[in-house]
Amino acid sequence: MTKRMNVAMIGGGFMGKAHAMAYACMPMFFWPAPAIPHRKVVVDVTDDTAETARQRYGFDEASSDWRNVVARPDIDVVDICTPNNVHAEIAIAAAQAGKHIICEKPLARTVEEARAMAEAVKKAGVIHMVAFNYRRTPAVALARKYIEEGRIGKILNFRGTYLQDWSADPDGPLSWRFQKKIAGSGTVGDIATHVVDLAHYLVGPIETVNAITTTYNKTRPLQQGGVDKLGAAEKASGDVERGEVDVDDEVISLLRFQNGAIGSLEATRNAYGRNNFITLEIHGTKGSIHFNYERRDELQVMFADDPADSRGFRTVYTGPAHPYGQGLWPIPGLGIGYSETKIVECFDFFSAIRTGKQPSPNFEDGLLTELVADALLRSGESGAWERVGR
Amino acid sequence: MTKRMNVAMIGGGFMGKAHAMAYACMPMFFWPAPAIPHRKVVVDVTDDTAETARQRYGFDEASSDWRNVVARPDIDVVDICTPNNVHAEIAIAAAQAGKHIICEKPLARTVEEARAMAEAVKKAGVIHMVAFNYRRTPAVALARKYIEEGRIGKILNFRGTYLQDWSADPDGPLSWRFQKKIAGSGTVGDIATHVVDLAHYLVGPIETVNAITTTYNKTRPLQQGGVDKLGAAEKASGDVERGEVDVDDEVISLLRFQNGAIGSLEATRNAYGRNNFITLEIHGTKGSIHFNYERRDELQVMFADDPADSRGFRTVYTGPAHPYGQGLWPIPGLGIGYSETKIVECFDFFSAIRTGKQPSPNFEDGLLTELVADALLRSGESGAWERVGR
Amino acid sequence: MTKRMNVAMIGGGFMGKAHAMAYACMPMFFWPAPAIPHRKVVVDVTDDTAETARQRYGFDEASSDWRNVVARPDIDVVDICTPNNVHAEIAIAAAQAGKHIICEKPLARTVEEARAMAEAVKKAGVIHMVAFNYRRTPAVALARKYIEEGRIGKILNFRGTYLQDWSADPDGPLSWRFQKKIAGSGTVGDIATHVVDLAHYLVGPIETVNAITTTYNKTRPLQQGGVDKLGAAEKASGDVERGEVDVDDEVISLLRFQNGAIGSLEATRNAYGRNNFITLEIHGTKGSIHFNYERRDELQVMFADDPADSRGFRTVYTGPAHPYGQGLWPIPGLGIGYSETKIVECFDFFSAIRTGKQPSPNFEDGLLTELVADALLRSGESGAWERVGR
Amino acid sequence: MTKRMNVAMIGGGFMGKAHAMAYACMPMFFWPAPAIPHRKVVVDVTDDTAETARQRYGFDEASSDWRNVVARPDIDVVDICTPNNVHAEIAIAAAQAGKHIICEKPLARTVEEARAMAEAVKKAGVIHMVAFNYRRTPAVALARKYIEEGRIGKILNFRGTYLQDWSADPDGPLSWRFQKKIAGSGTVGDIATHVVDLAHYLVGPIETVNAITTTYNKTRPLQQGGVDKLGAAEKASGDVERGEVDVDDEVISLLRFQNGAIGSLEATRNAYGRNNFITLEIHGTKGSIHFNYERRDELQVMFADDPADSRGFRTVYTGPAHPYGQGLWPIPGLGIGYSETKIVECFDFFSAIRTGKQPSPNFEDGLLTELVADALLRSGESGAWERVGR
Repeated sequence: MTKRMNVAMIGGGFMGKAHAMAYACMPMFFWPAPAIPHRKVVVDVTDDTAETARQRYGFDEASSDWRNVVARPDIDVVDICTPNNVHAEIAIAAAQAGKHIICEKPLARTVEEARAMAEAVKKAGVIHMVAFNYRRTPAVALARKYIEEGRIGKILNFRGTYLQDWSADPDGPLSWRFQKKIAGSGTVGDIATHVVDLAHYLVGPIETVNAITTTYNKTRPLQQGGVDKLGAAEKASGDVERGEVDVDDEVISLLRFQNGAIGSLEATRNAYGRNNFITLEIHGTKGSIHFNYERRDELQVMFADDPADSRGFRTVYTGPAHPYGQGLWPIPGLGIGYSETKIVECFDFFSAIRTGKQPSPNFEDGLLTELVADALLRSGESGAWERVGR
Repeated sequence: MTKRMNVAMIGGGFMGKAHAMAYACMPMFFWPAPAIPHRKVVVDVTDDTAETARQRYGFDEASSDWRNVVARPDIDVVDICTPNNVHAEIAIAAAQAGKHIICEKPLARTVEEARAMAEAVKKAGVIHMVAFNYRRTPAVALARKYIEEGRIGKILNFRGTYLQDWSADPDGPLSWRFQKKIAGSGTVGDIATHVVDLAHYLVGPIETVNAITTTYNKTRPLQQGGVDKLGAAEKASGDVERGEVDVDDEVISLLRFQNGAIGSLEATRNAYGRNNFITLEIHGTKGSIHFNYERRDELQVMFADDPADSRGFRTVYTGPAHPYGQGLWPIPGLGIGYSETKIVECFDFFSAIRTGKQPSPNFEDGLLTELVADALLRSGESGAWERVGR
Repeated sequence: MTKRMNVAMIGGGFMGKAHAMAYACMPMFFWPAPAIPHRKVVVDVTDDTAETARQRYGFDEASSDWRNVVARPDIDVVDICTPNNVHAEIAIAAAQAGKHIICEKPLARTVEEARAMAEAVKKAGVIHMVAFNYRRTPAVALARKYIEEGRIGKILNFRGTYLQDWSADPDGPLSWRFQKKIAGSGTVGDIATHVVDLAHYLVGPIETVNAITTTYNKTRPLQQGGVDKLGAAEKASGDVERGEVDVDDEVISLLRFQNGAIGSLEATRNAYGRNNFITLEIHGTKGSIHFNYERRDELQVMFADDPADSRGFRTVYTGPAHPYGQGLWPIPGLGIGYSETKIVECFDFFSAIRTGKQPSPNFEDGLLTELVADALLRSGESGAWERVGR
Repeated sequence: MTKRMNVAMIGGGFMGKAHAMAYACMPMFFWPAPAIPHRKVVVDVTDDTAETARQRYGFDEASSDWRNVVARPDIDVVDICTPNNVHAEIAIAAAQAGKHIICEKPLARTVEEARAMAEAVKKAGVIHMVAFNYRRTPAVALARKYIEEGRIGKILNFRGTYLQDWSADPDGPLSWRFQKKIAGSGTVGDIATHVVDLAHYLVGPIETVNAITTTYNKTRPLQQGGVDKLGAAEKASGDVERGEVDVDDEVISLLRFQNGAIGSLEATRNAYGRNNFITLEIHGTKGSIHFNYERRDELQVMFADDPADSRGFRTVYTGPAHPYGQGLWPIPGLGIGYSETKIVECFDFFSAIRTGKQPSPNFEDGLLTELVADALLRSGESGAWERVGR
């Protein structure tokens, strides 16, 4: 019989919802499952919000005391879905208590925090994972498969974008995502790290960067009430007090990879009309790959050795015949959403626990991504090529 | 506190998975939820398959005796996820036991069965729904909103397609979906009914049809073992015995609607390269709408009164600002898959139970769709316009 | 040295422009050219409009007397770019004078006219062609190549559309295209015949049809002045007199081909947002083809025997490696427009003159298309399957 | 009566074809025409190739002596379609002879040459133009219109790409385009300058750049015979001698504009599967624009103030209602190719001659683009931000 494992989830907001969904659904999709995740305790800021999260997300218990929960002997897994500013503290405590840990991205606000977290989990010998879920899109995993099999040859270049528009409105509220002391950085940490993670996954380590960072909207209306709101939908009305945005709104960077490939990266939350426009374009000596998350079921691939009269990008619509297809939907084209990327992530995490083999991206990988983020921010300041630290 | 309602799900296959997922997730997405669906009993053909389904889908109990389960007083809702041949029998028993019922599509194999079911639920006074989930795609619901608001004017015509390719391989196995005694019909019942349901939803009742039906692959390899397999992925190897396909492979039809609109419909499971190619194109006197489920996050809409220099189809990428957006994902572009269509369906079903107002499509609507399916099959035989019965 | 051939072009409107362009450019593109078309005489309704056409289109002479011009011994080729009502008369006179003839589509208003034309050119032994230029799109010619080479197997079905919106505005002027006595029919002759021609080219002869025809806008403002105007851009202002539209606005039809394939066809000039939306979708036993003229450089093709992990529609962007690529642009992706389809048509016409082998579509093919058009109109009346005449 | 102007075209290769086509067609499209360009003399390297060009392109005379031709009193316009290495010499001679000049892009191999050319035409008081034809795509001109009208607000950023794949094959021949002494540079001059020109047209002057330049294929087979060949189609067979490629294969750069906008640029001729992939993405404070030349009829535009439920990129399919629409095709969707961009260019050039007002881009603009190209090459060497010279 499949083993049940008790999960303590810290943070009951939007990300908590996505993770709770994955715990409930993972065994339904991937069967036999590596484990049955059991929603044991959900922790939120107050008892009230925690209790609501409990009912809504189907946990047994609610708590507002993460320290206590993380230390409980009946907890197997700690899941960190909080804002970035408490990732390190919780993760280190959880590691010390011997819990397996999945932590939302970015791993931390700073390289120092990330390094401390990576050391803690290493020392504790637990399984650890950073929730860069876009790797789990089947089409992205298929891109990786093609590259590993050499089907597009040696990679020459990479360009990745992550464009959103939910912060384009200058009167959208001052979410924690616009505050350096909580978020660490702006688009760099929030979304550029996804692109960095994808670049590492598909091409290899980035060695040096050369970036522009900028902030278009320098103030935003202060949030009302205790709940953090995102985006233009929650636009403040009338004459509200405004606070300073002290993080970046946009980053564009040139990239050089350790293996000699070159490329570029762009991330912004101010691109009107782009929703979750994560795109990848990779050219190799034998073909090319293109991906756009807004049409995430599809991978575009071009093989240079196709006959001249029928050469062109193939739109491979992912389904049962592609990565994770054994667990997702049995009929091609039913299609996946954000949910399924989280279900796959959950599957890979519990598979790692079961096999005892670290998943990817783990905290080491997360640290590497933080090092690139740090180099991007440094380069944005210096206006020069900056080397990714170690 | 939100009310918990006990669900008995009959059928633990692919559809059972989709429904179990929806029961677990609906309150996570739509909160406060109209009810907390509780996965009480799952029924499958044998005790063994039922027990596996129980573990996998998170139900309390397993059973192989649907009659007994349907009659249990602790059951509030009966969910029918079986092949088509037992829909009527189960639904009628459930209605007689006073249960609310959600039944997978098509409602039944024949008009007679569908009519008996519609009468049974009416008599019993329960809430009833047919699981034509594609209506629940936010982009489709947005199309309905535009039409209701008159934004594309009077509808002149409609064309809908449903193209798949999982049965294009003549050596794919003889699933129950190719057997008239179980399925009732082929593409007509399986997928053309989805298009009919969408046409009814967006345009109104179909009055007459004029169809071609055809069967390209007249035999298929008999299935091995007890489990029904779909598609080319499960292609039989070597020299297996073959059985007759006695249902349609493809249907194309002209349509006339009661309100004067005209149109066409096409459904096939043999269209190489098309996965779940449900497309809608609707022209009105003030604009047009286009939808393709393979890119289900997007609705294309064109308003004729836009200025000449900036007129064209708008790609509206559905998100928080669109139908069901309050429950789905709070950031635009995270994107939905098949899962979310089922979660929305579940929400609408329990909302109907809570309010006591029948949802749409209910069994009456399902009967109407069966009447169109029947007319399509008759027209395929007669080669002439056939009137949809009453 | 390449032979110079004198052309008399009858009709100096929009089509005259396209043909004059092709005469000037064909040798530039296809070299060595089969002939150098020399723009000798242009004929229009009045001396004034003819003289303007002469200057604008680069002809040596202008005339308003087509009978005289057609009979001149120095004329080698007669090109008919007039409204449909004088096609037959001119073509028969030109044939009797021994001229090679290219005639704009549709060949004629009626089957009787088309048959008389086909007989006249046959008797005269001249080269004859109907200007169904969309066949000349390289991507369409590539589709034909794939089909001929058996690369998508036996064709199962075909669906073709031709959607425009220039007549959707009910206050667009009453062009000759809305008048039966001049045009013969509406969308059937004007644009559905293009789809029929493409169906014949790619699949084979249509045997029976079953159509709906309809007229949405039953009156339109009478034209002011002598020049015929098209579309909404020329919308009448204020309180102008209106005349009756006595031709069809839209046609939808089921199709059965002689070779057993089935299909459908749709044409309308009232589809808001569609510009020149000529689409083809063809499913075969080994693959599928999709084409959309609005993205005419591209052909979508799917080969069923591609490996499961990299199967999908290929977007073949036509260029030097594809049909007519030797003459068009030497760098892939420079891209073609309407012009190039006409240049290719001109090349094929003069190649036919040079080799003495009839081109396709010639008047025989044009007659066949008229026979299908006639069947569509008959079926629109009868509401029943109608056989294409002989 | 419209004035006839005599053109001397220097260079009878691929570009000569495009220009000859434009001379023949411009008055057909734009009527009344600003002038009737008369194809008087074509000059090529030898008498033989010139004579072939004369017949093919419809010129009165052929010559292999450009100096003599340029000085002829009956010549009004000199058109330079040669490789880059003789642009300066011819242009300066033509200016001194008082001829109006249209010169293919890039204007010159170096800033020094470009500056000398700009000074010569200024001194001579003639009309001058550089043939950056992609500005003339109606969709690009429409983007400019939106920007000028403030419809997407203040421009925040710009990214432009020009991706091709004709040189991806390492065994494609060593065209003059790979030789610094003739071409001046590689992708920088050949195609990145198009992106620079578009950036200048749509956003304004570029101030500083920060680039990577690279050369993937360091040798190529020497050309056989006298005719320069492009691309993989002409791949050398067997054991041919190879020569050095001393120009760049790819350039990626960060950009800073004088008006504060930021951006990026990428150009490569080695991107398998990309044909003429000129893309623009521009985000403003009130909307966004996207363009892809491979689908050149379409402009994507998003207006932020559209209602929330119907906001998204509009696909504006250019036609009669858009820039240059009065001259191109009268029915929407007939579609344009490379030809039409050159016809529009020709129209704008002769309009400038007629009005005496310099067109854009003229040699001053071309010099500015050379200055950016020079900065790109310097930055590729230095690895640092480089200021565009004056």
